[in-house]
Amino acid sequence: MACERKEETMDVRAYAAMAAGDELVPWSFTRRDLGAHDVAIDITHSGICHSDIHRVREEWQSQVFPIVPGHEIIGLVTAVGDGVSRFSVGQRVGVGVYIDSCRECENCLSGEGNYCEKGMIETFAGFEKDGVTPTQGGYSTGIVVDENYVLSVPEGLDSAAGAPLMCAGITVYAPLERFGAGPGKRVGVVGLGGLGHLAVRFAKAMGAEVTVFSHSLNKREDALELGADHFVYSDDSEHMESLSKSLDIVVNTVSAPLDPAPYLSLLGLGGVLVFVGISGQPYPVNAFDLLNQRRMIAGSTIGSVAQLQQMLDFAAEHGVEASVEVISASDINAAYERVINSDVHYRFVIDASTF
Amino acid sequence: MACERKEETMDVRAYAAMAAGDELVPWSFTRRDLGAHDVAIDITHSGICHSDIHRVREEWQSQVFPIVPGHEIIGLVTAVGDGVSRFSVGQRVGVGVYIDSCRECENCLSGEGNYCEKGMIETFAGFEKDGVTPTQGGYSTGIVVDENYVLSVPEGLDSAAGAPLMCAGITVYAPLERFGAGPGKRVGVVGLGGLGHLAVRFAKAMGAEVTVFSHSLNKREDALELGADHFVYSDDSEHMESLSKSLDIVVNTVSAPLDPAPYLSLLGLGGVLVFVGISGQPYPVNAFDLLNQRRMIAGSTIGSVAQLQQMLDFAAEHGVEASVEVISASDINAAYERVINSDVHYRFVIDASTF
Repeated sequence: MACERKEETMDVRAYAAMAAGDELVPWSFTRRDLGAHDVAIDITHSGICHSDIHRVREEWQSQVFPIVPGHEIIGLVTAVGDGVSRFSVGQRVGVGVYIDSCRECENCLSGEGNYCEKGMIETFAGFEKDGVTPTQGGYSTGIVVDENYVLSVPEGLDSAAGAPLMCAGITVYAPLERFGAGPGKRVGVVGLGGLGHLAVRFAKAMGAEVTVFSHSLNKREDALELGADHFVYSDDSEHMESLSKSLDIVVNTVSAPLDPAPYLSLLGLGGVLVFVGISGQPYPVNAFDLLNQRRMIAGSTIGSVAQLQQMLDFAAEHGVEASVEVISASDINAAYERVINSDVHYRFVIDASTF
Repeated sequence: MACERKEETMDVRAYAAMAAGDELVPWSFTRRDLGAHDVAIDITHSGICHSDIHRVREEWQSQVFPIVPGHEIIGLVTAVGDGVSRFSVGQRVGVGVYIDSCRECENCLSGEGNYCEKGMIETFAGFEKDGVTPTQGGYSTGIVVDENYVLSVPEGLDSAAGAPLMCAGITVYAPLERFGAGPGKRVGVVGLGGLGHLAVRFAKAMGAEVTVFSHSLNKREDALELGADHFVYSDDSEHMESLSKSLDIVVNTVSAPLDPAPYLSLLGLGGVLVFVGISGQPYPVNAFDLLNQRRMIAGSTIGSVAQLQQMLDFAAEHGVEASVEVISASDINAAYERVINSDVHYRFVIDASTF
């Protein structure tokens, strides 16, 4: 591959927040030089994740600005370092929520760098291994990433509809896979947004029976169209109670505060309530609800690189894609408002040629 | 076995609470007639469980009095029904927390009658299948139990020290076994009482490395004597933090309210915090603590009949017994006060000949 290596640095156009809470504006910067194990990628599509908004508004923690958000990236390889063996120029690839990890801790060595004990290096709003250089994300025309954190995008997966799989998709796929969603298993999905609509599609593709729970009655039609077998209006406590002990896995995708009790009561023997959407508020858990049916509560954070690849391959094979609205870079700020108002079916993806 | 069947009814001496909150007093009553599948047992030993006290003081729910408590029973078979195939007269047997279940629901059919969807029939303070006859427990000279809910007590297990295994023992054994306690696994035990001391012994016997967490510094010596590898004073937050991500399974045996956060932080990748002791208060759970390391919280309620037998056999093989103080029936009320004040090492067992 050495013949394909380019020595020139990568100057990119991007959209960035220059200060906390500012609207995003056009910005240009230079990516790091291509290292021996790096892959240079021309980004074609970049998904908008709600966490992008939390970051640029400094709602989670203080940040270094400017910030170029974006961790749902699909693009084409334009150059590879001398030591790169897994990718070649022209190949379609993806980049997700993290672009490196310590590679030395027990979790990294077991392949789960997303749970790196020193913290994964996030695709944006993190710091490179030098501890001082901010990472910049996918709202840009290109990115340079170590090959070990780059995914191959299989044929048949649409680049726009596939981009949100890199974060939203893996976030729901990993716990569904871990807790055995499949034929004979009954899966509940709480909330029908970016995460929820993919949870429905993945769980169905895995062969499970799927019930959507929403406090918006008007999500019923959408839920069934997405493939859900049942829809439950979660404010209908009588209906909820009638489903006691009827599910195996309930995935909570809602980030608003929520009483877990009615969802725990849905679980049968050994069932699990998985949090992927979370509120900053503590959840009040009555331990009697856990002793009953030896239920569990679990958390899950994206997935490993191996799981990401498995998820992309599964998605391509089973036709699981996000429902997306493709926008231009100049629409980002308006899109943010619509994300906050849950006014999107179900994910925005930016056409990177418009940066 | 038909020759061993006795038609006479079983009159028993017992200790009972005649009204909520009353001290226990001597009482006599007649057990049900021996049915075709019943085993008549002369009780030799009956353990005192904290839940006995909750029941007779009506601290959990309203009850029908009189109540004869006791669900940690060891005794000898004195008669068997015509249809009994698994037990014979003279055999040493045990009875635990439940003496029947619906036998029709999914959980019963899968062998986990302790999670019976209609509710297991508890050994005392429950109702027989007729829905009106109160069940009466082990603080008595004899009991009649369906053979499917009777356990064989293996040779080598002391009757007094074995009695608490029927509730306290299985309560900690079942989750340790379920979550894979064994060589290479690091187990934390929170609280060192009736449940905790057995959790230490079982986890050690399974081959795990065991750390005891207690807010009583004076438990250190006891913990190490019981076989724990490490003792941590749980109010020492610096020590607690230094153990971040170092354990696989933490069993909470404490029934007082407790902040789960410091115990969740002890768990490494995929680790689980199991509640067996529980407070009536909701536990505040920060979901970030679950997303980190994809941790879990689980509950567990005693164990199945098959697990009970497995546990007794394991205990006999590995010399796991409760540390007990054997008392006479007339000491029960004083013993209750000492249980409430955690003034017992570690379990009271009543000599049933004194009823």
